[in-house]
Amino acid sequence: MKTVQVPLGNRSYSIIIGHGVLAQLKLFLHQKFPGVTPIILTNPRVYRLHGHYVERTLGSSRVHWLIIPDGEKFKNLATVASLYNKLLKLGATRQSVLIAFGGGVIGDIGGFVAATFLRGIPYLQLPTTLLAQVDSSVGGKTGIDLDQGKNLVGAFYQPRFVLIDTTFLQTLPLRQLRCGLSEVVKYGCINSPTLFKYLETHPGPLLTKQPDALAKIIAQSVSIKANVVSRDEQEAGLRAILNFGHTLGHAIESLGGYQKVLHGEAVSMGMVYSTLYSHKLRLCTEITLNRLVALLKELGLPTKWPRHSPQNYLKKVLNDKKRTPSALNFIAIKKIGEVKIIPVSPKHLLGYL
Amino acid sequence: MKTVQVPLGNRSYSIIIGHGVLAQLKLFLHQKFPGVTPIILTNPRVYRLHGHYVERTLGSSRVHWLIIPDGEKFKNLATVASLYNKLLKLGATRQSVLIAFGGGVIGDIGGFVAATFLRGIPYLQLPTTLLAQVDSSVGGKTGIDLDQGKNLVGAFYQPRFVLIDTTFLQTLPLRQLRCGLSEVVKYGCINSPTLFKYLETHPGPLLTKQPDALAKIIAQSVSIKANVVSRDEQEAGLRAILNFGHTLGHAIESLGGYQKVLHGEAVSMGMVYSTLYSHKLRLCTEITLNRLVALLKELGLPTKWPRHSPQNYLKKVLNDKKRTPSALNFIAIKKIGEVKIIPVSPKHLLGYL
Repeated sequence: MKTVQVPLGNRSYSIIIGHGVLAQLKLFLHQKFPGVTPIILTNPRVYRLHGHYVERTLGSSRVHWLIIPDGEKFKNLATVASLYNKLLKLGATRQSVLIAFGGGVIGDIGGFVAATFLRGIPYLQLPTTLLAQVDSSVGGKTGIDLDQGKNLVGAFYQPRFVLIDTTFLQTLPLRQLRCGLSEVVKYGCINSPTLFKYLETHPGPLLTKQPDALAKIIAQSVSIKANVVSRDEQEAGLRAILNFGHTLGHAIESLGGYQKVLHGEAVSMGMVYSTLYSHKLRLCTEITLNRLVALLKELGLPTKWPRHSPQNYLKKVLNDKKRTPSALNFIAIKKIGEVKIIPVSPKHLLGYL
Repeated sequence: MKTVQVPLGNRSYSIIIGHGVLAQLKLFLHQKFPGVTPIILTNPRVYRLHGHYVERTLGSSRVHWLIIPDGEKFKNLATVASLYNKLLKLGATRQSVLIAFGGGVIGDIGGFVAATFLRGIPYLQLPTTLLAQVDSSVGGKTGIDLDQGKNLVGAFYQPRFVLIDTTFLQTLPLRQLRCGLSEVVKYGCINSPTLFKYLETHPGPLLTKQPDALAKIIAQSVSIKANVVSRDEQEAGLRAILNFGHTLGHAIESLGGYQKVLHGEAVSMGMVYSTLYSHKLRLCTEITLNRLVALLKELGLPTKWPRHSPQNYLKKVLNDKKRTPSALNFIAIKKIGEVKIIPVSPKHLLGYL
């Protein structure tokens, strides 16, 4: 069992990582929310696969389940409105506690509902996918989609506790596992040559879900994220480095209608393009680019972006909410483990597609 | 011109109060948001009465107007969703600035939209009613209503600047002015015998909207609120004293369907009942109760609560989102200028209705 702290003053919290650490949840609830029946938000798939494990751990009578349909297309205001109503029916108050139990979509919706119901109630993250475990469950970014784009509405709202049980990964499809590994590669690129090297040397144990290997890369990833988030909670500057590969990644996802290309796959392509562009700007060597491409391929991740017209790419890139009106903040890579934020013209950025 | 600071670390801001202080807005925007076209949220009534004053001050070409229908019944998710769409159409980014220009409803919606659009964009409060000027524009409480009750969804999200121009009060109907004075009486009760005394000795200048008298009580009110909010931003404890008279007040408003009894009127009745109840608990003298009733009558505010069944009152009181599941936090008055929070059984609280 590994523990990572997220130091954020009176909003600080712990992340516990390991195989079977769900048992810690009962203890935490008992200590922090004595006598409160937790409300667990999840989807039918996660409930079917892991609901019994949670009930066995907590005691089945001591849980309210809120089950919403599975998928990004339900990450919207209508689902949020229905959850407010359900919480009111359950008699939820500011003394209640909501647990977001699932992948990134559940975490994003659960966090946003917790952030806004009664102007904020406590919530915990209990992520079940590798992507959610290494990325979205940590840092307090919550949000929902509008017709015009992803995560256009949301809040920065920190969980009280994040519990990362690698047991849940045993049922995760390989494609989803790879998507999570894509974000882990990102952490290596932006902050840790050691983590990057570990990925290069352990693709087998990771792709076969060896618990210790998974716990190791998860702990390193969330440590990096916790460090960045604690220094820039609301994305005023530094936190943007977590978006390495994401500007183009978001455009690729969006142009594929979020169906053809998954988030982690789009980030994989986006990282390759960002590194290629960094190389064109003479910020990194070709060796860096080649190492990145080789690792992503080894992990079974795509490295070639799909063909779309430059105009369509430009349009999507300009919809990105992190841009300043005049220029894009591009996260360039200097070498494995070091990035820098530079302003670039969107048109120039896309010139090597 | 008076200035009050709200000290909240990196979320600190200033409140400027006075007759004609709108001129400060141009300066503030120029300094903090150079080159940004402000987006002003208001309703048709405020736009008709004061839109030209704002345009004359800022320059008409330098403003985007967002106009939503007037009234609490539009303070809902549907209005919020329409505002997200309008902001996207205007190309708003995290570098934009939203100005909530109106009464409490505009401030609550504007603040909530600013809190959640793109996970938070900067906003300013430019309140036009006395109630909004002394209460809702300061402190960062934002929110919208659900069918089940008022302000059930929202966020704590601080404005960057609050500009209180008493000029706007000249067109305010007398009944609305009185509603604002009700909250000022509340500040006297919870924190300031001096303010209470001033109200007792200056009803004439206040009810005839003498600018200096208004600026004086507004500045004292927001100073008290700023002090409380800076010590308890998210209502963990102390901030609850701002709800003196509000537990019953909310119930009265709700039972009247928010039409018959206005917020300030309901708070007036609620304060009388809270003081009566405090007297029954032997926490304050009958003199305190009599002084309060006399002052509220002098200001033209109602002091008798409407008849509803005890069951209906109880039901509404238990819907109040600030209650703990086991008991109500009741704000009792000890003497003018001093209150304390005590847990009471809801049934006992309502026993003297």
